[in-house]
Amino acid sequence: MQRIEFEQTAAFLHECEDAYILIHQSPDGDCVGSGYSLQAVLRQLGKRAKVLCADPIPERFAFLRPEVPEEDFEPKCVISVDVADPKLMGSYREMYGERVDLCIDHHVSNLLYAERTLLHAGAAAACEILCGLYRYMGVRFTEQIASCLYTGMATDTGCFKFDNTTPETHVYCAELMREFPGIRYGMINRNMFDVKSPSRLRAEMLMLSRMEYFLDGKCAMICVSQSLLAETGMDESDTEGMTNLPTQPEGVEVGVTLREKATGGYKISLRSADRVNVSSICQELGGGGHVKAAGCFLQGELEEVKARVLAAIEKGLAQA
Amino acid sequence: MQRIEFEQTAAFLHECEDAYILIHQSPDGDCVGSGYSLQAVLRQLGKRAKVLCADPIPERFAFLRPEVPEEDFEPKCVISVDVADPKLMGSYREMYGERVDLCIDHHVSNLLYAERTLLHAGAAAACEILCGLYRYMGVRFTEQIASCLYTGMATDTGCFKFDNTTPETHVYCAELMREFPGIRYGMINRNMFDVKSPSRLRAEMLMLSRMEYFLDGKCAMICVSQSLLAETGMDESDTEGMTNLPTQPEGVEVGVTLREKATGGYKISLRSADRVNVSSICQELGGGGHVKAAGCFLQGELEEVKARVLAAIEKGLAQA
Repeated sequence: MQRIEFEQTAAFLHECEDAYILIHQSPDGDCVGSGYSLQAVLRQLGKRAKVLCADPIPERFAFLRPEVPEEDFEPKCVISVDVADPKLMGSYREMYGERVDLCIDHHVSNLLYAERTLLHAGAAAACEILCGLYRYMGVRFTEQIASCLYTGMATDTGCFKFDNTTPETHVYCAELMREFPGIRYGMINRNMFDVKSPSRLRAEMLMLSRMEYFLDGKCAMICVSQSLLAETGMDESDTEGMTNLPTQPEGVEVGVTLREKATGGYKISLRSADRVNVSSICQELGGGGHVKAAGCFLQGELEEVKARVLAAIEKGLAQA
Repeated sequence: MQRIEFEQTAAFLHECEDAYILIHQSPDGDCVGSGYSLQAVLRQLGKRAKVLCADPIPERFAFLRPEVPEEDFEPKCVISVDVADPKLMGSYREMYGERVDLCIDHHVSNLLYAERTLLHAGAAAACEILCGLYRYMGVRFTEQIASCLYTGMATDTGCFKFDNTTPETHVYCAELMREFPGIRYGMINRNMFDVKSPSRLRAEMLMLSRMEYFLDGKCAMICVSQSLLAETGMDESDTEGMTNLPTQPEGVEVGVTLREKATGGYKISLRSADRVNVSSICQELGGGGHVKAAGCFLQGELEEVKARVLAAIEKGLAQA
């Protein structure tokens, strides 16, 4: 359970064989970009590598997939990227959660569960760390690797909008744009942030119209029930990008999205408008994440779950 | 009517006296950031300078204003920034439209109406040109100047999302972030892109619910009438940020927003999802702008205006 830096990470990647790369469930642009780029880099080094995710990887990330088809092999090593907690491996947790040889992550809440951890909590995205690491290793960048890294950095920063964006995020993206002018960055961003299916647009309208306000208007909350998903024809991954909706109204400090899981319980996403640390609020509820974007999972009836979340937020507001 | 570069522009700014700085009507982050930063730079050089805009500058840009109060003086020179066409000076056009000594702009449609024009059509924003120009001139950057330049570059690129974003946009912003870590960039972006008044949120819901589809779903259109503004309590500047809404649905190539002006006629904003050149469509309708974001103004009844716009878009689609 050792913290390591670029030098040892590079050495590990050069020496490892037959790697499984685990990314977190409910996959987003950063873990997908991290996983697929690392797969490509390991293949460049002559290794076999495979990306594993407990949930299906949404179609909008298909363009990041390396072209070489998946191989079947048993792992000699396990690497996790962008996975702060083995719980987030979902169904792969049992098999691999306790045998991760290397974890590369940027979450301050990382549990340091791996044999070796490259943790840069100041980085905007796991892809930002990987961008620096690949440069350090002298990796030959390709359009596919560049697309992965750009997508990861763009999605985890809300397209460079959030406070977690660093000067390095901008510098790395500028370098990728100069090196690969043929990549359609605007199109990537459009597909990640703007394009919405008709069902998603309908759902957004419904969300906005159902937004509830609490704690003197400092908290706005949206509940997405399974019946709402069914009614709108939306799937769970459609709701991923909607977690920022409840921070839009003027005066809101914490925006909350409660999403009912098909298997029961609620996935809860908290977003901070500015000064409230939602990571510590979520830690209190058994979850974690970043200061401005965090989450947790609660079992129980809706009203009870709401009350627990609101009580934790009230405490967080008082501390801010 | 001469095209000039940094050297002559710097020489002009060093020699000029008592400058009026004209920005375009319906002011956005780029022209406001350009205007206020240039005012500050000219004052650093010991000159009197004043920003003029035909419309009130929205409150959300107040943080960009230099602290030194406005002085009253008659201009010895007139500079326009981010103004492609004297028409966009609105009520100031008559007085100053034909006596612009220097224009600094990034619109490919610039009419070259000024005595001297610094035109970099490849730049994402007028603020991107100014950032390079100020560095060239050895200007001492301040938090206010940095905030202006960041805001201009962020707003004109949709927070680095659109295709007009250049590597330089990212590099300049990284430099500003490194030099002024105290500026709350995330907060600027939140205020520019995310925070919405309750009336604006209601209006967005209404817009989305009223979106009409034309030309096989390749064009989506939203009409904002004066009565809708009155009904929602929204003002015209609230609608500025909504021009991208109609490009969100899957399959849309051109998104159109028609906004009825209080004084009659319609302000029309076209946004291209990808391959359609909306600048040339708008030029056909007497307007102009960028390849992916352009506008025009049409007099007439709503149905007639819609028909003219749709005919021009149909032609544009066929050419793409």
